[in-house]
Amino acid sequence: MITAAVEAFAEHGYHATTTRDIAARAGLSPAAIYVHYPSKAALLARISLEGHEAALDLVTGAAAGPGDAATRLGRLVARFTAWHAEHHRVARVVQYEYGALPEDARADVARLRRRIEQVVEDLIRAGIAEGTMDAAQPRRVARAILSLCVDVARWYDPAGRDGPADLGRLHAELAVRMVGRPAGR
Amino acid sequence: MITAAVEAFAEHGYHATTTRDIAARAGLSPAAIYVHYPSKAALLARISLEGHEAALDLVTGAAAGPGDAATRLGRLVARFTAWHAEHHRVARVVQYEYGALPEDARADVARLRRRIEQVVEDLIRAGIAEGTMDAAQPRRVARAILSLCVDVARWYDPAGRDGPADLGRLHAELAVRMVGRPAGR
Repeated sequence: MITAAVEAFAEHGYHATTTRDIAARAGLSPAAIYVHYPSKAALLARISLEGHEAALDLVTGAAAGPGDAATRLGRLVARFTAWHAEHHRVARVVQYEYGALPEDARADVARLRRRIEQVVEDLIRAGIAEGTMDAAQPRRVARAILSLCVDVARWYDPAGRDGPADLGRLHAELAVRMVGRPAGR
Repeated sequence: MITAAVEAFAEHGYHATTTRDIAARAGLSPAAIYVHYPSKAALLARISLEGHEAALDLVTGAAAGPGDAATRLGRLVARFTAWHAEHHRVARVVQYEYGALPEDARADVARLRRRIEQVVEDLIRAGIAEGTMDAAQPRRVARAILSLCVDVARWYDPAGRDGPADLGRLHAELAVRMVGRPAGR
């Protein structure tokens, strides 16, 4: 049912999709959907919360692995980028329809986003403490690094030349450079 | 009429907006809109083409100014980022509804995007030739730098702490680092 909803939202946009459309795709009656989700907005909220929870797990896991701060940041960015390429359909729905979320779900999602940003900010602060990174504004740089990863969902083309892992490697290198100690500037 | 269309698309999504909605916002009859735009898709195409043409002018102008490649890249990124913050409503419509464009308009927009990417790629190649920049994959790095700028439209909040110029300065520094010559890595 969640998959059917994601497909319908991705294809026609959230506002133009009806619960009836979703039910038809899922091979269910509209009533069967209403049992679990009282509204289309509740379905969107479920999709968005699950997506953000998975993203938080992913970045937390990547940041907790072995290595110095730059290694851990690179791993986090590689995985987060690849994830947005692989899940670009869900990611687009979640990002583009953020404004359509019910208010309480939006607050939950905003909290999850802040926690994801915090993981990256903490890594940058760890790198600065180690003496391996340089950033005047760790919080804002964390936001920019995540922004670079998330935007992959907008333009990723499964038929294109670069796969999720290629993009992950490239972005990992770029993110590490963003917080590196530049030579002679 | 264009403004009314952008507002309607931004608020309700392209698919859920009717030509009648746009006419009502613009204080016109639907017939008055059809005189200029035979369909809602033609309006979207006009908005998207104008947006991409303005973006190409902006990056071309920034790249052509004085300074070495890093100075010009920084200026380009600062302006392109600030532009996406200032015009975040139009930018969201243009980006999120790319798939809804009629095929010929999509091809025109894709051509404009490639030209914008080419401007950035050329700057990176100029920096490598000067000996001031380092990038193994200039085309892909150009795409990543532009991605960082464009994504501002997704999360920019006019009520937030950072204005368009602040974000522009930050991203300019990050982009220059992305192609800088890293020390000892």
